[in-house]
Amino acid sequence: MKEMVLKPIGIVRSEVSEPRRAGWEQVTSEIIVDESLTESLDGLEAFSHIIVVYWMHKVFYAGLPRGKIHPQGREDLPLVGIFATRTPYRPNPVGVTVVRLLKRKGNVLRVVGLDAIDGTPIIYIKPYIPRFDSPPHV
Amino acid sequence: MKEMVLKPIGIVRSEVSEPRRAGWEQVTSEIIVDESLTESLDGLEAFSHIIVVYWMHKVFYAGLPRGKIHPQGREDLPLVGIFATRTPYRPNPVGVTVVRLLKRKGNVLRVVGLDAIDGTPIIYIKPYIPRFDSPPHV
Repeated sequence: MKEMVLKPIGIVRSEVSEPRRAGWEQVTSEIIVDESLTESLDGLEAFSHIIVVYWMHKVFYAGLPRGKIHPQGREDLPLVGIFATRTPYRPNPVGVTVVRLLKRKGNVLRVVGLDAIDGTPIIYIKPYIPRFDSPPHV
Repeated sequence: MKEMVLKPIGIVRSEVSEPRRAGWEQVTSEIIVDESLTESLDGLEAFSHIIVVYWMHKVFYAGLPRGKIHPQGREDLPLVGIFATRTPYRPNPVGVTVVRLLKRKGNVLRVVGLDAIDGTPIIYIKPYIPRFDSPPHV
């Protein structure tokens, strides 16, 4: 199979410059989309929320990745597999987050709740549509 | 910046072998996770739904990618930017889907609603948690 190489489509601008575990809900940041892709955003402003995939360029493994972790770093909680948690320490340092879209102006998206630090490469944006993205009977 | 290269963590096994536009809701398929990552799935069986990111290895652009498209291929609908749609024709051939988890057995996840054909590389799995993934007031 060919290598799976991602192209950045934009970058995050945020006052948060170092990774942190929590407290992202109220963070407002900007996604600066590559200017060559500006028209690809046309119509996105009609949506209140969007799904963003990004590359956690500052997440590195301390040694080998572990298969199991204590959720939230709490050693009083039993070990579970990393895929059963939301840890950033994964085989691929990718993040997937639903954020609120405050405003689109040209190639700039102003969003709330994106848990990505300043300088994070963006690789994917699509509208959040409850019919597809919010299953019933969870 | 270093290249953003994804590692496959598993592969899709499905009776659907060619890309199609719709009709995925009832498709049952299996995600065969790499055996070296089996314990990383421990605990995932507690969740009814999971978020899956995959690499659409059979999506190719016919010519240059376009910035705008007619949604659902319907020429009676006005052109919108690709990021405002759910089209697979994007700068990165990545798919993000919420699926129902029927069963986990060892390194095999049996799921419903994954819109990925047989042989699709899987790059990311996490539990679907409404508190994070289903925003209010959409």
